[in-house]
Amino acid sequence: MMLTTTTTDQYPSRAGRSAEFLPRHDPVVYGSADAKTASGLTAPQLEAYERDGFLILPEVFSQAEIDCFLRDATRLLGSEDIKRSGEVITEPGSGDVRSIFRVHAASPLFSRLVRDPRLVNIAGDLLDDEVYIHQSRLNYKPGFRGKEFYWHSDFETWHVEDGMPRMRALSMSITLTANTPDNGPLMLIPGSHKSFAVCTGETPANHFKTSLKKQEYGVPTDETLAELAQRGGIVSAVSQPGSVIVFDCNTMHGSNSNITPSPRSNVFVVYNAMSNRVTEPFCNQAPRPEYICSREKIETIKPEKTDLMGYRALLK
Amino acid sequence: MMLTTTTTDQYPSRAGRSAEFLPRHDPVVYGSADAKTASGLTAPQLEAYERDGFLILPEVFSQAEIDCFLRDATRLLGSEDIKRSGEVITEPGSGDVRSIFRVHAASPLFSRLVRDPRLVNIAGDLLDDEVYIHQSRLNYKPGFRGKEFYWHSDFETWHVEDGMPRMRALSMSITLTANTPDNGPLMLIPGSHKSFAVCTGETPANHFKTSLKKQEYGVPTDETLAELAQRGGIVSAVSQPGSVIVFDCNTMHGSNSNITPSPRSNVFVVYNAMSNRVTEPFCNQAPRPEYICSREKIETIKPEKTDLMGYRALLK
Repeated sequence: MMLTTTTTDQYPSRAGRSAEFLPRHDPVVYGSADAKTASGLTAPQLEAYERDGFLILPEVFSQAEIDCFLRDATRLLGSEDIKRSGEVITEPGSGDVRSIFRVHAASPLFSRLVRDPRLVNIAGDLLDDEVYIHQSRLNYKPGFRGKEFYWHSDFETWHVEDGMPRMRALSMSITLTANTPDNGPLMLIPGSHKSFAVCTGETPANHFKTSLKKQEYGVPTDETLAELAQRGGIVSAVSQPGSVIVFDCNTMHGSNSNITPSPRSNVFVVYNAMSNRVTEPFCNQAPRPEYICSREKIETIKPEKTDLMGYRALLK
Repeated sequence: MMLTTTTTDQYPSRAGRSAEFLPRHDPVVYGSADAKTASGLTAPQLEAYERDGFLILPEVFSQAEIDCFLRDATRLLGSEDIKRSGEVITEPGSGDVRSIFRVHAASPLFSRLVRDPRLVNIAGDLLDDEVYIHQSRLNYKPGFRGKEFYWHSDFETWHVEDGMPRMRALSMSITLTANTPDNGPLMLIPGSHKSFAVCTGETPANHFKTSLKKQEYGVPTDETLAELAQRGGIVSAVSQPGSVIVFDCNTMHGSNSNITPSPRSNVFVVYNAMSNRVTEPFCNQAPRPEYICSREKIETIKPEKTDLMGYRALLK
């Protein structure tokens, strides 16, 4: 199936290209700094996000709230309905569910969580636009046999495979368990978001069926990674439950395997600017399914204040 | 091939057994404390080794010495003779050499290194006996695609597959590159050496051909590991080049994968007490080859003082 792209490709990648760095054409923090009041992010935090491409915010949610989220997460991970929906990633051997996509549509609690002002207002302030959920998922990385996830820029995939035009999206990882130095925490390369690392290789048909377990295309070369790490170093997002790791769509990140007994769970939410809705993919492949990339079902996410009692009331 | 074991099995494992902890019948630090003068280990260090099952000793070798070792290591890793010897572990895809066994016999420099008093005297003091090299290897764990190595007690394998009778051996890892929190450093479980974790499963014929790349038998159960980690925690042996990590043969250890650009290299030397020489394996399999387990070629290792100039003179 050949699709013609109608938008100019600002960030060409794959399709036989050589590895190189292209300049970022887009802001990191959108809009004027003095208009950012809703989120409560301080000027130094905004500067750090602009410079590093991420922020690690501790104690955004209380342990009691996290306990609520974990209870709902455990229920969803064990649900046969969810497994049957196919909007999941399962373990090859056991069939155990490791990720649930569109988690914001999978339960009333997680539907409310993505609307929590503590999250939405950060997205609104940084992107200076109304926002919608490009993708969401609940991730469960088990102890003992947690797999590594290789370095990648989410934007590279979202651009090439989903047709996201510009860098005006961000991810939030709400940590449900502790990220220790030993249990394969998220690693980020500060400053890597400032240039676009063109990837070599092609985009196979139905790439998403394998790439979500182990990415082989859309990954940077060794030389690209060595240069980025040389420039910016590597930061492990070591954090307690209830933290939120906010990172720009183009920040290079990955994680090592986890042989420790401590599992890692998080809720992963991608906010995209309404003005940056996806077009046709920038590759000659059919778009990925709706559960991985919102294309038809676009809904503006408005802040909706919720507290512990509110979340408890939403538990099934 | 069926072999009959003639020695009583103090530490039975595998062969259809259930997971359980057996008491350690052997000392950790052998001999009387006041007789330990050769190594220069202090009383608190001896106590820590007895309690935790390991010691991380910084700055044992100078950076100039490590540069010598690295130069010899690089030569050996690229040697066609070494690759042809078959006493290596290679990468499945590329055929690149990842480990060289009997490295103490592979070059004059490494032959001298295992005799360095800074190492041998520690082994002599802790084991209170003359010592020989049970196994040695040069390990190169590349960046980007360094594989994890799952939790195991070396003694469990040396006992079952090599016929090492008692816990009177120790390993030293001489670090040639930095072990950072992010590049898959050696992780150890303090106190795990105090009990013997019986492993389930069998011992397949020629197990060493696969176990040295990825161990599937002789690994503890999830419950065993969870209990050990619960009791003792997990320590990452974060260290600079020139450090020596000394650990008891029964200390549970492993490492996560390494997707960072920083490779990890070390020289790994196992000193065994002369009184603890291997017998027939405690399983119904043929012994592993001589290059993995010294059985015929037993030579007492005597201290031989060497300094930077001495090592430089041994470079090829």
